Amino acid sequence: MNHITSKDNKGIKEYIKLARSRSYREETGCFALETVKLVQEALDSGVNILRLYAGPELQKNRPDLLEQARELGTEINLISPELEEKMTQTGNSRGCFAVCKRLDKLHHMDTIGKKGRFLFLNGLQDNGNVGTILRTAEALGVDGVILSRDCCDLFALKTLRAAMGSAFRIPVYRSEDPRADLLRLGERFLTCAAVVGGDARPVTEVPFGPNVILVIGNEGNGLPEEISSCCRLRITIPMAGKAESLNAAMAAGILTWEMLRRPAQSL
Amino acid sequence: MNHITSKDNKGIKEYIKLARSRSYREETGCFALETVKLVQEALDSGVNILRLYAGPELQKNRPDLLEQARELGTEINLISPELEEKMTQTGNSRGCFAVCKRLDKLHHMDTIGKKGRFLFLNGLQDNGNVGTILRTAEALGVDGVILSRDCCDLFALKTLRAAMGSAFRIPVYRSEDPRADLLRLGERFLTCAAVVGGDARPVTEVPFGPNVILVIGNEGNGLPEEISSCCRLRITIPMAGKAESLNAAMAAGILTWEMLRRPAQSL
Repeated sequence: MNHITSKDNKGIKEYIKLARSRSYREETGCFALETVKLVQEALDSGVNILRLYAGPELQKNRPDLLEQARELGTEINLISPELEEKMTQTGNSRGCFAVCKRLDKLHHMDTIGKKGRFLFLNGLQDNGNVGTILRTAEALGVDGVILSRDCCDLFALKTLRAAMGSAFRIPVYRSEDPRADLLRLGERFLTCAAVVGGDARPVTEVPFGPNVILVIGNEGNGLPEEISSCCRLRITIPMAGKAESLNAAMAAGILTWEMLRRPAQSL
Repeated sequence: MNHITSKDNKGIKEYIKLARSRSYREETGCFALETVKLVQEALDSGVNILRLYAGPELQKNRPDLLEQARELGTEINLISPELEEKMTQTGNSRGCFAVCKRLDKLHHMDTIGKKGRFLFLNGLQDNGNVGTILRTAEALGVDGVILSRDCCDLFALKTLRAAMGSAFRIPVYRSEDPRADLLRLGERFLTCAAVVGGDARPVTEVPFGPNVILVIGNEGNGLPEEISSCCRLRITIPMAGKAESLNAAMAAGILTWEMLRRPAQSL
């Protein structure tokens, strides 16, 4: 066990860089995790935690967590409150920081099975939305979530926090070429583009079967025509009132709910 | 038209105090609004805007908005970029700040009609959640939203931003005594307490009629027994996976969607 007190420690600097830089996360294949709750979720979900940094509060209150990590081969480092302050992005770490290996997360598109119900997030930019959608997708029972290349980072702390551990459990895929992937997937899945109004079919009338890919667009602009035109159906949530639209995560949640409730209903 | 450059201007100080202090908002019956989008929504929704503070960007790009406000009797003040920086809570004001009158928002409970479908938010603490729920409620066609006394402030900028103008349009009521109000409302509405799991009825099997009050609990703790026991039904969203629960706004959105889709289905 190491005791670290210097701000110039190499590991501490690396943690902070991982927490702040998406390109560094992608370059190293690692990510930074903070808060007792998230690190516990990661441990319980089999995430490979390379190094743990434990402040006094964690050492005192959660020796079991430290023991669990040590048994899994994690390097444990004890840190001072001053270092915690330097490392924290949330102000609510409870003295718990980890450097994790991404490993096999972000599967290639060609590993998606031939059946199931999936979400496809195209160009979402808000970490909170992506995290909330992952959490909702897992809770409702989606088989996996596909992120287009231009989505915000799954491994950003804000995304992981909003996902409440779901990011460690639900299969996540990455699409480098959304148009090509959607055209190919459309051969065996009902690909549905979520749009606002227009000539789209109300979601309550969509014949969702067991194999569906629900495509959700960006917060500000929705789905570009070049993406929605690659889908077999355009679907929408009927709106009342003057609200122009729903929040992207809320729209995704309601559409996901509909996609999953239908088969049960027709049993 | 006034030109203001001093940070010690009484109106500027009052704006900042309104933006930051709930108790001052309640004491004065006013609230602070920021960003072009929100102020435009307020104008279009008939909110009484007492004073407008316009920075250079607004003066240049939106003379129409200033004219619209002037015609409605709003006092217009021109401010310097330095003052904008002092006033902004969002960093995205586009030079647009307003002091508004609350007027008849937050209706008394006894003005709720005898029919309709309402949300009752009990003790929600996250401004973003309350705003998102208001936006969703309006978009889906809820007749009104009731906030318990211990909910976060409807007139906080964070709430108003997440609501995207819905807070100015959908009727909002305030419950000083949730238990008594729910018992009374239960005589003519189907009062449904949203809970997680347990012996609650799956939302897909709830006989929602045209008169429903859907009661949503606090983010961390859900509904206390003393509140859910005042409702006629306990209902829940069936969960798959390991996610413990949905985000409070998401749960409210899915339940609201179900409450409103049912009658259409049975027509």
